[in-house]
Amino acid sequence: MKLTILGCYAATPRTFTNPTSQVLEIKNRLFLIDCGEGTQVQLRKNKIKFSKINHIFISHLHGDHFFGLVGVVSTFALLGRTTDLHIYGPKGIKEIITLQLRLSNSWTNYGLFFHELESIASETIYEDDKVLVKTIPLKHRVYTNGFLFQEKVGERKLDLDAVQNYGIETCYYQIIKNGKDITLDDGTVIDNYKLTFDPIPAKSYAFCSDTVYEESILPIIKNVDVLYHESTFLKSEEALAKKTLHSTATEAATIASKACVKQLLLGHYSTRYESIERFREEAETIFENVLLADDGKSFDF
Amino acid sequence: MKLTILGCYAATPRTFTNPTSQVLEIKNRLFLIDCGEGTQVQLRKNKIKFSKINHIFISHLHGDHFFGLVGVVSTFALLGRTTDLHIYGPKGIKEIITLQLRLSNSWTNYGLFFHELESIASETIYEDDKVLVKTIPLKHRVYTNGFLFQEKVGERKLDLDAVQNYGIETCYYQIIKNGKDITLDDGTVIDNYKLTFDPIPAKSYAFCSDTVYEESILPIIKNVDVLYHESTFLKSEEALAKKTLHSTATEAATIASKACVKQLLLGHYSTRYESIERFREEAETIFENVLLADDGKSFDF
Repeated sequence: MKLTILGCYAATPRTFTNPTSQVLEIKNRLFLIDCGEGTQVQLRKNKIKFSKINHIFISHLHGDHFFGLVGVVSTFALLGRTTDLHIYGPKGIKEIITLQLRLSNSWTNYGLFFHELESIASETIYEDDKVLVKTIPLKHRVYTNGFLFQEKVGERKLDLDAVQNYGIETCYYQIIKNGKDITLDDGTVIDNYKLTFDPIPAKSYAFCSDTVYEESILPIIKNVDVLYHESTFLKSEEALAKKTLHSTATEAATIASKACVKQLLLGHYSTRYESIERFREEAETIFENVLLADDGKSFDF
Repeated sequence: MKLTILGCYAATPRTFTNPTSQVLEIKNRLFLIDCGEGTQVQLRKNKIKFSKINHIFISHLHGDHFFGLVGVVSTFALLGRTTDLHIYGPKGIKEIITLQLRLSNSWTNYGLFFHELESIASETIYEDDKVLVKTIPLKHRVYTNGFLFQEKVGERKLDLDAVQNYGIETCYYQIIKNGKDITLDDGTVIDNYKLTFDPIPAKSYAFCSDTVYEESILPIIKNVDVLYHESTFLKSEEALAKKTLHSTATEAATIASKACVKQLLLGHYSTRYESIERFREEAETIFENVLLADDGKSFDF
């Protein structure tokens, strides 16, 4: 699982900082999460292939999370894309994009599918044989979802020495990897655990931005490997965080701790602070495993 | 008259090039012309004060000319702007911006006025005591206008030595600057030209992008000081220019020559060419006074 931060600062794009957008790679699939203005240039700068992005998830309709979407959709068309593109986001996202395409008298040659979200309960919005994506209902000034990306547990790993010692033919390997026991020609039953190793543990990533401190998300994000939780402010601006329905680094760390996640990744920083290190310092007083998102930074989990 | 090029490349923003946007300063007024994605960051990089921009002109509704507008409008609001902002552009521009503001549940605290354009004839769309702006109907794949910015002729300059020699009191200075003759106490009439110098010549700037080669614009841009004319392609791609309703550097230079403009400024380059110098070389075979726009470049005219 590889995460590339294209932008992680709040409010407006600035000379050296970008609004929210990130690319999550799981099992060779690329998921674009949020799409602030300038995302297409950030994709270029980070050498991410446009053609590999088939699914875009938009958390909410504040500009710093979606103003770059129409540019991405439009540029994909200009570059001759033919593969379907799926966009998941709040009701209204379809009208925003299609209005602009219609008025510019330019349509996409590829299939453009909108999956508009309205549910206030968590729901599965994407699933294939390797990955599952669920919404994480958040509490912000407009309808907002975080997204939980879960790898599915893979097949068991074959113990090659063991299967060869038992003289098992290769045509049985797949059913062994699927977890089945094997009966040898002499009638002996070999338990699957003697022929295989446990599969690589399935990873999970929860993206939670923007949101006020909200414990109702705990059951959904419980035990995830990595939690990206917004920390727009430090504790010193707690009142402002409450008023604007954002979180402080302390609150993000408290959620991480209560959800027993393995790692906390902070982001969506207000640009009022000179150093983002202060977010880490504050969060580490509550939760020990804290990482800082920053534009252009990649994480291999 | 000072022109700052924020972006002058065609189609999509790229790592080192920006789509169309420029700032024209005339008589201490700042006019923003077109607003491709990333314009607000380009404004920051070029240290142009957001608060001084009160009028934005959008030529047409192709993404590389307006995708940055909603971000500019939104950022102005976030920064607490209170001064009115006027936007001039094709019908539809209001719906595009207001839909996004409505869905993001954020409105501007400042007055936001849209002046939607539909006329296929040139019309005056802005006028104050110093500056006049007219549309230049262009021919492109969607409804498109260029814009002609004309300084108004200022008052005559007082010849201080002359007025003092004639013993004329200061209370008459303004009517002399307005062009009136003066009758002295002894009845002698002093012609105005003996008391004043000609005013600084009024400058004019014509912005023409995007457009196919179109001679119907000649009467409108006749004799302008500076003509910005798109040159998306070189002559070698003339067929492609015709097909996409763009111009070549040769065609831009031909228009400049026929309109007897003083200077031609080229821009809206396709990124297929390695060096933009080739546009200048081609245009100079037809018209001698050719300048090249480039991102971040400023011109004092």
